[in-house]
Amino acid sequence: MKPMATFQRVESQVRSYSRSFPKVFDKALGATIYDIDERAYTDFLAGCSTLNYGHNDPDLKAALIEYVSANGIAHGLDMFTDAKEHFLATFERLILKPRGMGHHVQFTGPTGANAVEAALKLARKVTGRTNVIAFTNGFHGVTLGALAATGNSKHRDGAATPLSGVSRAAYDGYFGADIDTADMLERQLSDPSSGFDAPAAIIVETVQGEGGLNAASAEWLGKVQAIARKHGALFIIDDIQAGCGRTGGFFSFDGMGLSPDIVTLAKSLSGMGLPLALTLIKPEFDIWKPAEHNGTFRGNNHAFVTAAAALDKFWADDQFQNAVARKAQYLAERLMAIADRHDLSIKGRGMMLGVDAGSGEQAEAICKACFAEGLIIETSGSFDEVVKVLAPLTISNEQFAAGLDVLEASFEAVLGSHRAAAE
Amino acid sequence: MKPMATFQRVESQVRSYSRSFPKVFDKALGATIYDIDERAYTDFLAGCSTLNYGHNDPDLKAALIEYVSANGIAHGLDMFTDAKEHFLATFERLILKPRGMGHHVQFTGPTGANAVEAALKLARKVTGRTNVIAFTNGFHGVTLGALAATGNSKHRDGAATPLSGVSRAAYDGYFGADIDTADMLERQLSDPSSGFDAPAAIIVETVQGEGGLNAASAEWLGKVQAIARKHGALFIIDDIQAGCGRTGGFFSFDGMGLSPDIVTLAKSLSGMGLPLALTLIKPEFDIWKPAEHNGTFRGNNHAFVTAAAALDKFWADDQFQNAVARKAQYLAERLMAIADRHDLSIKGRGMMLGVDAGSGEQAEAICKACFAEGLIIETSGSFDEVVKVLAPLTISNEQFAAGLDVLEASFEAVLGSHRAAAE
Amino acid sequence: MKPMATFQRVESQVRSYSRSFPKVFDKALGATIYDIDERAYTDFLAGCSTLNYGHNDPDLKAALIEYVSANGIAHGLDMFTDAKEHFLATFERLILKPRGMGHHVQFTGPTGANAVEAALKLARKVTGRTNVIAFTNGFHGVTLGALAATGNSKHRDGAATPLSGVSRAAYDGYFGADIDTADMLERQLSDPSSGFDAPAAIIVETVQGEGGLNAASAEWLGKVQAIARKHGALFIIDDIQAGCGRTGGFFSFDGMGLSPDIVTLAKSLSGMGLPLALTLIKPEFDIWKPAEHNGTFRGNNHAFVTAAAALDKFWADDQFQNAVARKAQYLAERLMAIADRHDLSIKGRGMMLGVDAGSGEQAEAICKACFAEGLIIETSGSFDEVVKVLAPLTISNEQFAAGLDVLEASFEAVLGSHRAAAE
Amino acid sequence: MKPMATFQRVESQVRSYSRSFPKVFDKALGATIYDIDERAYTDFLAGCSTLNYGHNDPDLKAALIEYVSANGIAHGLDMFTDAKEHFLATFERLILKPRGMGHHVQFTGPTGANAVEAALKLARKVTGRTNVIAFTNGFHGVTLGALAATGNSKHRDGAATPLSGVSRAAYDGYFGADIDTADMLERQLSDPSSGFDAPAAIIVETVQGEGGLNAASAEWLGKVQAIARKHGALFIIDDIQAGCGRTGGFFSFDGMGLSPDIVTLAKSLSGMGLPLALTLIKPEFDIWKPAEHNGTFRGNNHAFVTAAAALDKFWADDQFQNAVARKAQYLAERLMAIADRHDLSIKGRGMMLGVDAGSGEQAEAICKACFAEGLIIETSGSFDEVVKVLAPLTISNEQFAAGLDVLEASFEAVLGSHRAAAE
Repeated sequence: MKPMATFQRVESQVRSYSRSFPKVFDKALGATIYDIDERAYTDFLAGCSTLNYGHNDPDLKAALIEYVSANGIAHGLDMFTDAKEHFLATFERLILKPRGMGHHVQFTGPTGANAVEAALKLARKVTGRTNVIAFTNGFHGVTLGALAATGNSKHRDGAATPLSGVSRAAYDGYFGADIDTADMLERQLSDPSSGFDAPAAIIVETVQGEGGLNAASAEWLGKVQAIARKHGALFIIDDIQAGCGRTGGFFSFDGMGLSPDIVTLAKSLSGMGLPLALTLIKPEFDIWKPAEHNGTFRGNNHAFVTAAAALDKFWADDQFQNAVARKAQYLAERLMAIADRHDLSIKGRGMMLGVDAGSGEQAEAICKACFAEGLIIETSGSFDEVVKVLAPLTISNEQFAAGLDVLEASFEAVLGSHRAAAE
Repeated sequence: MKPMATFQRVESQVRSYSRSFPKVFDKALGATIYDIDERAYTDFLAGCSTLNYGHNDPDLKAALIEYVSANGIAHGLDMFTDAKEHFLATFERLILKPRGMGHHVQFTGPTGANAVEAALKLARKVTGRTNVIAFTNGFHGVTLGALAATGNSKHRDGAATPLSGVSRAAYDGYFGADIDTADMLERQLSDPSSGFDAPAAIIVETVQGEGGLNAASAEWLGKVQAIARKHGALFIIDDIQAGCGRTGGFFSFDGMGLSPDIVTLAKSLSGMGLPLALTLIKPEFDIWKPAEHNGTFRGNNHAFVTAAAALDKFWADDQFQNAVARKAQYLAERLMAIADRHDLSIKGRGMMLGVDAGSGEQAEAICKACFAEGLIIETSGSFDEVVKVLAPLTISNEQFAAGLDVLEASFEAVLGSHRAAAE
Repeated sequence: MKPMATFQRVESQVRSYSRSFPKVFDKALGATIYDIDERAYTDFLAGCSTLNYGHNDPDLKAALIEYVSANGIAHGLDMFTDAKEHFLATFERLILKPRGMGHHVQFTGPTGANAVEAALKLARKVTGRTNVIAFTNGFHGVTLGALAATGNSKHRDGAATPLSGVSRAAYDGYFGADIDTADMLERQLSDPSSGFDAPAAIIVETVQGEGGLNAASAEWLGKVQAIARKHGALFIIDDIQAGCGRTGGFFSFDGMGLSPDIVTLAKSLSGMGLPLALTLIKPEFDIWKPAEHNGTFRGNNHAFVTAAAALDKFWADDQFQNAVARKAQYLAERLMAIADRHDLSIKGRGMMLGVDAGSGEQAEAICKACFAEGLIIETSGSFDEVVKVLAPLTISNEQFAAGLDVLEASFEAVLGSHRAAAE
Repeated sequence: MKPMATFQRVESQVRSYSRSFPKVFDKALGATIYDIDERAYTDFLAGCSTLNYGHNDPDLKAALIEYVSANGIAHGLDMFTDAKEHFLATFERLILKPRGMGHHVQFTGPTGANAVEAALKLARKVTGRTNVIAFTNGFHGVTLGALAATGNSKHRDGAATPLSGVSRAAYDGYFGADIDTADMLERQLSDPSSGFDAPAAIIVETVQGEGGLNAASAEWLGKVQAIARKHGALFIIDDIQAGCGRTGGFFSFDGMGLSPDIVTLAKSLSGMGLPLALTLIKPEFDIWKPAEHNGTFRGNNHAFVTAAAALDKFWADDQFQNAVARKAQYLAERLMAIADRHDLSIKGRGMMLGVDAGSGEQAEAICKACFAEGLIIETSGSFDEVVKVLAPLTISNEQFAAGLDVLEASFEAVLGSHRAAAE
């Protein structure tokens, strides 16, 4: 096939998802994505949680087309634009104010990694310290500053140079249910001879999207926040994958009584998959000099337009949130049934849920079986052992159920046969 | 004014261009940008060379609207999509093949910094070395890996942690016309006791867009490439600001007889200001493991669509290139006249030209005077002393001339009065 | 007093022990040290375990005087000398061979820190990895490479630059008796996404001399060695303070069934307090190039002479070792009695034993009270809370008992009064 | 031979000088060193300038024996001792006061590298900056902090980890006589976009002992000092190899009108080759906290005794200095003659002089020829191309002349034949 040949010839070996899903796709709507042979696939990957509202939401699409048609500014560096103002005002009104958050909004280069880089730089500036505490299995991006905080060795090795400036702590539950890793961190930071330098920041995901869908408890997160405060460090929540509704609320930490000093957002923020990232900063820590952290595409106005439209459509009242909660409940029930059937365990929280398939090989086989049946789904975890459901939050109940049926059957097909082989 | 209040209240202090141009803009077409009071401004900033084809080029805009309307995939991670295939095939046909370049194309996170991070990581992987040679006044981005290669101290200080992994060499002409800085570099790398560790890469801009429009000669660049080869380092051209036609050819090094191992592109690549970045890699160095360098927005399909349209429109034959050459000639004449009149010198190459105004204060005053007359223009250089013309390459002759008239008058207004004050 | 004025005027503020013991000393013999007013002090500091055989042992002294008198070479760079040969042959015969150790001996610059620097550099060379695992409360020296492995924040802050290349693990018992920190380390190193980079080495003290006399169990050390082996890291025992008989055997790990790849020695090695340090390396890891790690004073021949004499005198048979064991037993009984009396706990192993006085203030007050009574003794630990007995191993039973009487009385004087104050 | 077998079997491969001089030495007096077969060698290596007063100077030896015999304290940590007081008072009276230097004296671990580590750490503490400027071909030691400042790639590679915290500048004359490298450094530091971070310190040797006997002019050093002052950096002279009389005065910068903020000394300081190192610090920069930089052997009292005796003997009046000047003059004449004869050039200053033999191979052959004739001499330089004369400053005129005769003949033997071979 000609398109395949182009990719083989011209694209870098670094490509990855195209290896799991070796089709050429061209159109997408809602939870469905189509290949050039017009076959439809249900999308349980959703751009790794970038398409929480599905593909090409009609209202977002309409807003974008209207804006472009009217010669709205596409690229504005960080100049004031109407579209940016509208996004900021909407974000303030629907997201920040209702939560009592007075954070400033920094538009960074439009990648999550860039938002993390900005967060870490700022925390170091504010505190005059260089050490950052990050957690086992954390994923924060692959540019050198963010990568130092990322746990995954494949990505770390990609730096091909030592990564520094980060001390590693154990995530909630890392050493089992009986060991409180927050207490361990407190012990280390309180001991002046522990070798843990006083931190500029503690950066944490509430659910580790790449690291295996480990979900921290509100209590543990509260302890970590308190530790940060006590030791003069900024408390940063990287909400890039878990935020924007994925776990239920707009922020993954909604309702937990937390008050992070910095929050990073990206992925589903623009609502339509357009590149957009931001770093929320408590005003007292917004000590940036003009342009000290900059970037060409920090004014992606198309994304401002769709992002504002998404906020207006989904976050103006509780309806969407309630619907997501119901879907999450349903998802949990379905995955629990699968897990029970195969003596496995489920991982995650909200609509960010998966099943630990026991090994990377089994998880891969399951995902492959799903794809054969028209379901796009991927793995997560240290050994890629967790089959991860990241369906669009807007998926219809019917399509969701059908997709989960495929998933269930794939577990059966793979683990049934595995068991048979073992017996 | 309400919009201003929103920015004051909600946006981070890090914003910069909005300080120079304190208006709220909403629409733009070609070389003109409009504020919400419908005042028109001529844009000699062009998104810092991101809008080489002007704002909202009608053909690009039409291609985008058509694509979106048809539910084309917006966000595709790094899966195969029709839009990506079309871009790759077009890029290969119109750009790579005619130049005999067999480079692979890596889609990185859609920021120039990310393309640079990928380039430096890969060079370190390929060579097993960690040191990178970068140049005085170079600018490569502000994420930690790219920032280490960037020369600007304001940006470097923003890291708030020491930057490592880069040795600094002097750019062409840095120590005056009589000193060959390439020879100096060769001397240092050939001396096993010089303290310059064997480099993984030498990264260079052919014209330093942020660093003061210093333009390297083809001869010097050739020497630097030869030094890289001799010492086992990859030769990387960062063509993010100078590429995509800004200096005349598609690549800023067209016609120089160079063969860079890696090239980074971003800014004007998408043609319409949409975030897109890529790293071109000679196949023998494309040793990435799948996903080793990844990023959520590396499949920005809207940008693929407009980028392919831009290549088709502007680079299928010589017309555009010839027109740019004529405009560059005209620009040089106009700036030369200004420089002569005020005993100043001009900097840069092609449509990336400026006048060293003697000091940052004078340059700022000139830009301010321009803005009052409806011309958006910015500075560059170690002391922001160069008034930099980055007009859209597609600007009409009339608008170009009128803009340069404003510029000329502003020099007169500021430097005339300065001289008067001095006398 | 004139001498004091000289120090005040000329010596750097960095001096420390002279603040605890503000007298000018001039002579010393065995376990006694004299000030210039001829007052005698019992030395329970012993040069921080550098004078395990006491001051000016008559046989060592005689050997040195004889050597100097005969114009023996004092300084030999790393040329072959008779004195070095004699030391090497003796060390091989009495120390290495009986233990079945085939290690090569590297003479580094004559400081413990330098031996550690050599060990870490070599482990990185051997493995091609840069990360080193070091432990909470570890102390390995204050030059930049060794300091990165050191836990103490006062010393770390002295670098005034971030320290890198070390991941921190928890020492035996760090999180209490119920948590096996070796299992934790194994978990982290086996998890490819833990953020612990594959280590070049694990470096450990069997007893943490500066870190509070924490003593690792043989079982835990065996586990750590096995972890190092499993993960391709070199296992380094830093035996600088605990070695040379301090804990009973020549090496602190004698009889534990361990086989460290690298061992560092210094402090008491020369037997008389002369600067000498070495790094023992298993032959298969001795891949140094000639002079790759060098240093002017790595051939301190005076120290070779006394070191060989010390080995001959104390380590040719079991007598010394048995005597040390008896003294250690006595010491443990005496300190246990003190600890019981004040509801405190004892720390350490062998003749490297102390009492956790509950706080740094109390420990300091106790040491001060001792000094007033002619006993020199110091503290250790994260908060300097451990009163540490490091008497010469050769101290007479009578002087040892008398010194411990003073110590006991000082605990009584300080903690009695503290309790009285609290009541 | 038995001793050789011991070294082969037990000593690490890192040994180096023993490869050039494969004999076992046992005694030494003045400028003569003897092997165990009683063959005498003239020592033009002098412990790499550690034995400026020759081997076993009778007065120093007597002082040491007397001190040891009387049970003088050998090892005193950093407690006040009579021997230290005597050294400090003598150093102040004979060295500091006459030069109007009010520097404090820090006793570091007794290696030059350790003195450099202390200097760099302190400069970073004082300035709050991390970057240090060091020069091409500089040598400052091989522990990680000092090694970062060292230029030699063999030593740098030994770290097996990237070295950071140092920017490299070109030494006096590095780019030829016509290029003022101090002006280049000033240009780079004055340019906020040069990529040279504001430095904590500039560290320089006045003559590069290991780097090829490059000698900086007083004018250039004065410029560098002024640059340091202007840019808020401490000016550090590493006088470890060039100091203690080697270039004529006690400090190598005597009479140059310089006022370094920090000076490091080691090598010949103890006068007899015993390990001793110190860091001289202007009082206003002596902001160390107690023990912030420490080390077990910083109180090597034997070395204090011989160091004070050496100062008294050689530096109480001008006699020694004048004699050294005469010898240096004679040396220059002899080497000039050799250089002229073979169309070579001489390098260095004072009694730290050599001949650039054209290549490392030739230099090695010459040294080998010398050794065959009983002369110990070594090379220096990026390619080990400089034959370096480091005779004891106290060598008799007769022995000096005879040694130089051997050197002259060896040049003839090697370069004569080389030329013959070439013809």
